[in-house]
Amino acid sequence: MRFLRAFISTGYKASSLRNPHFIFELQMEESLRRALAEKQSAVDSQGNTVRALKAAKASKIEVDAAIEVLNGLKLDKSTMEKQLQAAVGSDGAVNREAFRQGVVNTLERRLFYIPSFKIYRGVAGLFDYGPPGCAVKSNVLAFWRQHFVLEENMLEVDCPSVTPEVVLKASGHVDKFTDLMVKDEKTGTCFRADHLLKDYCNEKLQKDLGISSENAAELKHVLAILDDLSAEELGAKIKEYGITAPDTKNPLSDPYPFNLMFQTSIGPSGLSPGYMRPETAQGIFVNFKDLYYYNGNKLPFAAAQIGQAFRNEISPRQGLLRVREFTLAEIEHFVDPEDKSHPKYYEVAELEFLMFPREEQMSGQSAKKIQLGEAVSKGIVNNETLGYFIGRVYLFLTHLGIDKERLRFRQHLANEMAHYAADCWDAEIECSYGWIECVGIADRSAYDLRSHSEKSGVPLVAHEKFSEPREVEELVIAPVKKELGLAFKGSQKMVVEALEAMNEKEAMEMKASLEANGEVDFYVCTLGKNVVITKNMVAISKEKKKEHQRVFTPSVIEPSFGIGRIIYCLFEHSFYTRPSKAGDEQLNVFRFPPLVAPIKCTVFPLVQNQRYEEVAKVISKSLTAAGISHRIDITGTSIGKRYARTDELGVPFAITVDSPSSVTIRERDSKDQIRVNVEEAASVVRSVTDGQITWADVWSNFPHHSSGSVED
Amino acid sequence: MRFLRAFISTGYKASSLRNPHFIFELQMEESLRRALAEKQSAVDSQGNTVRALKAAKASKIEVDAAIEVLNGLKLDKSTMEKQLQAAVGSDGAVNREAFRQGVVNTLERRLFYIPSFKIYRGVAGLFDYGPPGCAVKSNVLAFWRQHFVLEENMLEVDCPSVTPEVVLKASGHVDKFTDLMVKDEKTGTCFRADHLLKDYCNEKLQKDLGISSENAAELKHVLAILDDLSAEELGAKIKEYGITAPDTKNPLSDPYPFNLMFQTSIGPSGLSPGYMRPETAQGIFVNFKDLYYYNGNKLPFAAAQIGQAFRNEISPRQGLLRVREFTLAEIEHFVDPEDKSHPKYYEVAELEFLMFPREEQMSGQSAKKIQLGEAVSKGIVNNETLGYFIGRVYLFLTHLGIDKERLRFRQHLANEMAHYAADCWDAEIECSYGWIECVGIADRSAYDLRSHSEKSGVPLVAHEKFSEPREVEELVIAPVKKELGLAFKGSQKMVVEALEAMNEKEAMEMKASLEANGEVDFYVCTLGKNVVITKNMVAISKEKKKEHQRVFTPSVIEPSFGIGRIIYCLFEHSFYTRPSKAGDEQLNVFRFPPLVAPIKCTVFPLVQNQRYEEVAKVISKSLTAAGISHRIDITGTSIGKRYARTDELGVPFAITVDSPSSVTIRERDSKDQIRVNVEEAASVVRSVTDGQITWADVWSNFPHHSSGSVED
Repeated sequence: MRFLRAFISTGYKASSLRNPHFIFELQMEESLRRALAEKQSAVDSQGNTVRALKAAKASKIEVDAAIEVLNGLKLDKSTMEKQLQAAVGSDGAVNREAFRQGVVNTLERRLFYIPSFKIYRGVAGLFDYGPPGCAVKSNVLAFWRQHFVLEENMLEVDCPSVTPEVVLKASGHVDKFTDLMVKDEKTGTCFRADHLLKDYCNEKLQKDLGISSENAAELKHVLAILDDLSAEELGAKIKEYGITAPDTKNPLSDPYPFNLMFQTSIGPSGLSPGYMRPETAQGIFVNFKDLYYYNGNKLPFAAAQIGQAFRNEISPRQGLLRVREFTLAEIEHFVDPEDKSHPKYYEVAELEFLMFPREEQMSGQSAKKIQLGEAVSKGIVNNETLGYFIGRVYLFLTHLGIDKERLRFRQHLANEMAHYAADCWDAEIECSYGWIECVGIADRSAYDLRSHSEKSGVPLVAHEKFSEPREVEELVIAPVKKELGLAFKGSQKMVVEALEAMNEKEAMEMKASLEANGEVDFYVCTLGKNVVITKNMVAISKEKKKEHQRVFTPSVIEPSFGIGRIIYCLFEHSFYTRPSKAGDEQLNVFRFPPLVAPIKCTVFPLVQNQRYEEVAKVISKSLTAAGISHRIDITGTSIGKRYARTDELGVPFAITVDSPSSVTIRERDSKDQIRVNVEEAASVVRSVTDGQITWADVWSNFPHHSSGSVED
Repeated sequence: MRFLRAFISTGYKASSLRNPHFIFELQMEESLRRALAEKQSAVDSQGNTVRALKAAKASKIEVDAAIEVLNGLKLDKSTMEKQLQAAVGSDGAVNREAFRQGVVNTLERRLFYIPSFKIYRGVAGLFDYGPPGCAVKSNVLAFWRQHFVLEENMLEVDCPSVTPEVVLKASGHVDKFTDLMVKDEKTGTCFRADHLLKDYCNEKLQKDLGISSENAAELKHVLAILDDLSAEELGAKIKEYGITAPDTKNPLSDPYPFNLMFQTSIGPSGLSPGYMRPETAQGIFVNFKDLYYYNGNKLPFAAAQIGQAFRNEISPRQGLLRVREFTLAEIEHFVDPEDKSHPKYYEVAELEFLMFPREEQMSGQSAKKIQLGEAVSKGIVNNETLGYFIGRVYLFLTHLGIDKERLRFRQHLANEMAHYAADCWDAEIECSYGWIECVGIADRSAYDLRSHSEKSGVPLVAHEKFSEPREVEELVIAPVKKELGLAFKGSQKMVVEALEAMNEKEAMEMKASLEANGEVDFYVCTLGKNVVITKNMVAISKEKKKEHQRVFTPSVIEPSFGIGRIIYCLFEHSFYTRPSKAGDEQLNVFRFPPLVAPIKCTVFPLVQNQRYEEVAKVISKSLTAAGISHRIDITGTSIGKRYARTDELGVPFAITVDSPSSVTIRERDSKDQIRVNVEEAASVVRSVTDGQITWADVWSNFPHHSSGSVED
């Protein structure tokens, strides 16, 4: 993700901003409360329905069905109440951790992910996606391609991960992509310096209840400024607090920068250092010239890339959120800096969602719902194109199943942004670790293309042809070399270069001074001192010229998606538990939308029986033909257990074969079942997983099936 | 690809088998001849049609239309004749190179691929896929997922590229994944030793026409055994021939092995060496236990993975065919070694295609058409499962558009296969570089799982529960330690271990000898000598035991796809040229099937005109909604030029807006056009790109449109 790269030009350390933002309290309770209120109103409304049916003397079947729905809603409500009670309990962090444990246990047990190389005791920060996780990931990426690349006609590219040093020199990564590290002076074990300081402060605050309020305030202040501390300041604090190495309690070295790129060597000579790319964006920048040509030399256009990126983290924590190899999906939208309007902006302008502008953060307020169009027109969001992408990212994430109440767009504070950036917003998703930055959307101005232009000597620019030539004034600085040589001898070259490098403002000021005083003091940085320039040494003028085109470096607006982080947050947002029918255990469910679900459908013969199994095979074949991923489960386990197993994978639909001619289709969250003919089953599942129709449509078009004693 | 890994356990060098197979001549001329014959029969048949129409006194319009088709076919035929003449010309290699230059120029100019980091003068062996190439690649991968993962219910996983050393120690890569290298002794430049020797022999044979026939035979022999030469033998030949460094002519070092893995370091300590994986398969093997559990502890099942792999080639050649980073798609099908039948085998058994069994290679014959079922039943292909995958790979490749006349399945010779492999076939595709191995399909027996079991100590095994317990005889070897201690003192432990390590045959032979002679000579490898074992030192017996299950290491059948190689061959097979209407230039076309085409459809307003452009936008919107990737081209260029531009990208359909109510749809290869209503356009294109209907269906259902003067 690029929040990181934003810093390298200003020399911040790589860890900045990648921690969940400490100053904002978790708002999980709030969103639980909101969800509970919604459920309460559903209960009320269904209660009214039941009363109305009774008053209208409806048939017993109708009334009973409505009561069953009501009871279901009440059960859900009571589950949510328990969750809320847990979350607001005396120790919210403990409850969040318990919730996370529940999710993570399920994810690992069902192989959504697996610590990599587990049989060799694994490697910190490396994870495999097992079958359901891999399917979720490929569904998320397919939707990303559809939503961004296809709908926006982006130019997708695919570049290697192995990158020669020169490219990452130009981008700044070789010099500045570092975290501060300390070493256990006896064992050599490495730690992130800021982590140790943070852990110390947190532990002191939480466990040492006897500390004075001044001390507590000091520790809180350190936590607040942690990301801004220099190596020296961090080292001083570690010394001051007497922090030692965890476990061994040995003394620690001073903090020093560690480059987070995996280094390697390209070719056999050992003379060509290379790195595994820390982001995919550079592959796009170095291809700008070709891509611009491919686009018919027209702006704006966007290029996109999905691929692996690598960061050799010092000490990975937080499971899937901080890993050493991960998938990024990045967009570089190139645009004329003088025109950042967007033709499809109107399509998103009316969206309203949680935004957290700089002002609100500085004044201690919290995120609030703002209409995107308003944010752009008031200048809170810098320009239309940036606003358009914020809106598209919002649609992307919520479509995947991210809870819109736990999604906010947070603007970077002035000190978080690189000096060249025009504006920057992060899509942050709340999970049990806090608010996690999952997408960065930055207007990076012309920085990246300029850096590569300078380093490579290849101009990465765009042209705007004028319909008719324009007259422009051009600054002409003409050093008189003879005079300068007489005056400065061997230093002449440096003085000439410094004169020629003046910008318009500097040159016009010098011209004025020379005209007024005949001479002027002039600082030559390559000499490190002032020299005196007299009137006869340089001629400065402005000349009129006809220009046929404008040549400029495009600005780039960059939405950058941390796919693994989005998926992990999606896992948490999709997870819930509900009591089994017998009420003796809590069952896990992932409420993935069909778009994301790893398997769209399971097929269950109700009992082990050759005729049913043949029907199941026929249905399986039509599902395959329709491109619907599915599984047949012919084990003799009870149907209720099979449903529970499938709910835990987030499979939205289950087809149960209980007769040779017709079958039932069950929807995961409502547990509602309908009955269809065998021939129709696959096409119904296809329509509802494709999003052509909703389950509500299905529910109103097909006969309902009461589960009766089937689901145990 | 795994052809490589097959060798590491036998200590072959990594380059073996990755060169186009030298002993088989290129057969491009043959396939051109075949294609020409087909075209000739099309001309004949169309000629008959014309005559029949005239005889039946059909309308002038009908006759003229038929003649036009005939003329088109004749034109195609004459183009093909020229191609054939070129290919069989006095120097076929030159013509193949010219053909390749034509393809490669088009590919690079239209950004199918781009040398990576071009503005920094690139890095050998690294390529970017530009927009159309990236789209082709993602279409190929999506179809791979559909054809293999979805249809076969495979368990797809996604593992990191960064791999700790221990894993690649177990697999053998750390010790044996090497190529032999020589260095220019003065400049340090590195070369592949076999490449230098090969170039020397080829050049001598081609250019030095005065060499004796004995010398020529010797050089040809060297070329034939090149892949089998040891470091010492290669070095000796280089010395004998006086081969020096290219360009500098400096002396060369002796050949020595260079490991082809990119090495790096995991974490900050510098103490955990790691590598970028050279293949994706190891990630599956180390997860076998979890995946077996996920599959309900049942065999067979297949796991699959798509991902990047890395090989630090010494001196990459052959463009996209030999690169340092590439995409592999690998399948590991785990199966009971005692039952390699496959339930869906019958679906492929009747396929017939070019196969090249070991026997035919040894006896100097060429590949021939064999029915797959026959090859399996005759034991040419080792087992049904291997046969099934060969058939599925054939369907996969030909469905993508690989010419079935230039695709063959070649069986590995005995000396190419690892000792543990049961059988191995490569799908080889013929292109201008010769026959290129693009898919390896190997029955690797239990080798990989056993290696990781041993190294990790975690048993990677499967269980077969018996329906009722079985009585088995178990070998019991009971060394009498007291006697052995008296006899061998400090060597006792080694002798005991050696006795216990005997297999059944050895033990029963010893038992017989001891019973016959009272003593026996016994070689103890850890002592490096024979010792005398007497009757009182060891008791050997067979005991009957009840077993409830069988525990065994599954065999693995592994189809492994080099995606980049397949795509490059597909580019060559899809490329052709045809004369422009004016006949003044040759136009390039890629005949990609819609499945593979980077863009499915273009939309052209016939002339620059606001009404037409609005219609184009409406159609574009419905294409987006239908998920059809497309481009609008509103430039004022002539429609013929726009068609040519789009043919060169392999876009199969073009919608031309020439009225506000109806539009034409043009098919790329026939250049036929039909007319449809604006509202229908997107759905027609969707049906024909989805493969629901063919262009022939469209052609017979819609009114035809004569291009007239439009296509210039």
